[in-house]
Amino acid sequence: MIDCGEGTQIQLRKSRLRFGRLNHIFISHLHGDHCLGLIGLISTFGLLKRTAKLHIYGPAPLASILQPQLDFFCEGMTYEVCIHEIETNIHECIYKDNSVSIWTLPLAHRMPCCGFLFKEEPVLPHIKKDMINFYHIPHYDIQNIKEGADYILSDGTIVPNNRLVEPSDPARSYAYCSDTLYKPSLSQFIEGIDLLYHEATFLDADAKRARQTLHSTAADAAKLAKQSQVKKLMIGHFSARYENEQPLLEEAKSIFENTILAEENLCVSI
Amino acid sequence: MIDCGEGTQIQLRKSRLRFGRLNHIFISHLHGDHCLGLIGLISTFGLLKRTAKLHIYGPAPLASILQPQLDFFCEGMTYEVCIHEIETNIHECIYKDNSVSIWTLPLAHRMPCCGFLFKEEPVLPHIKKDMINFYHIPHYDIQNIKEGADYILSDGTIVPNNRLVEPSDPARSYAYCSDTLYKPSLSQFIEGIDLLYHEATFLDADAKRARQTLHSTAADAAKLAKQSQVKKLMIGHFSARYENEQPLLEEAKSIFENTILAEENLCVSI
Repeated sequence: MIDCGEGTQIQLRKSRLRFGRLNHIFISHLHGDHCLGLIGLISTFGLLKRTAKLHIYGPAPLASILQPQLDFFCEGMTYEVCIHEIETNIHECIYKDNSVSIWTLPLAHRMPCCGFLFKEEPVLPHIKKDMINFYHIPHYDIQNIKEGADYILSDGTIVPNNRLVEPSDPARSYAYCSDTLYKPSLSQFIEGIDLLYHEATFLDADAKRARQTLHSTAADAAKLAKQSQVKKLMIGHFSARYENEQPLLEEAKSIFENTILAEENLCVSI
Repeated sequence: MIDCGEGTQIQLRKSRLRFGRLNHIFISHLHGDHCLGLIGLISTFGLLKRTAKLHIYGPAPLASILQPQLDFFCEGMTYEVCIHEIETNIHECIYKDNSVSIWTLPLAHRMPCCGFLFKEEPVLPHIKKDMINFYHIPHYDIQNIKEGADYILSDGTIVPNNRLVEPSDPARSYAYCSDTLYKPSLSQFIEGIDLLYHEATFLDADAKRARQTLHSTAADAAKLAKQSQVKKLMIGHFSARYENEQPLLEEAKSIFENTILAEENLCVSI
């Protein structure tokens, strides 16, 4: 989960996602609308007798803000909350497992703030089962073949690797950038990714206000998407001044066509 | 406002009540579902450039829990938040103005907890304008008449007070009791009030669980309403184990007929 504003536990319940599958929460910055839902979510997990550790990543002073509340509201809870304070002004890997690595993206806002880049780890190619059966290849050779080896039959014939495997889907990538000024230097980290979420608080007509409050316009978001050659852009975090979000979408699309609006409960397949 | 769980600001916005009219918040106890919405509500009022003081009443350690969050999330806010820590084990007046007095009601829960009794101040009777005109009563005598005086005409005739005024509506009263064990001693404070909100977390079939967790059953709430001769009972705070709340209502009604269920956004006229 990225960010956790007030009411997140209610949205999470509505989404019907299983609470138990959530083990890592990434907080971009400590403005209330991005973190005030943490304590309620953590408490509720406690009432539900969760046992798995919950890891929370965010800029300092996350720990000194959250820990006193944990001590008071979550006394005697059945699981552990691990708070990891992260550096927001560098690009570094803060989490890695077999399937994904997660990297900070330094943003420019009114307080320390970073985005997050999720990079799927490349997956080994898929074995062609019919070929394995055809050549009677033993199980203990499969891993070598997945890693690129050819197979040599008992008569010395070489079966080339590409007859035995088919390539897996390319590794996917997603970046989340909110809240921030337009920051062209992000391109180096997000080039060619599948999906970029970028804040677009204002229209270009309100660019002055965007600069003052360290936010972006829809045009800014689209410019970053274009120069980074991302596959798709999703914009969100719209100012309440805009009752209709279509002009924000149109502004972005005029620069980067494959743009969508972030909407409540929207699911995007990558 | 009484109690302020997570998401209160969202409910308040939906209710279309004017934010600026909310000046006093009463917190019964410091379980998360009764107070975790405070910081978000206070922050939002700040973003809206509120200027009027906001008073928050609740048991200790409300101040030491809330103040560090105010210092961090609400720096440079345009208005003042005044935290008043209250005693939960006595019945005392914690607020009074020309129209209402507010009293604590000592409850029995797993942590210091109190209910609140709202007593409208008696209103002076209404002047009968046609009678005032008929007898040519000067303006400076009106207040005396409102306070019960007869009027003496220049020929010595006494016009009795009840010809000059009609009684105002009786002063109204409302008590909020959550969370608590059944506590018969509350009756002395809430006798004859117009509306009693009382928690009814469990059915009588789960009375053992109610005792263990220091909660009440629907039957408990109704017993208190009956012995206190209140005019109306509203029950709420139902355990999530009951998908259907009708059995809770029926259990209460079998003891105290004029019972209703508390529902989201319900408005009750007194």
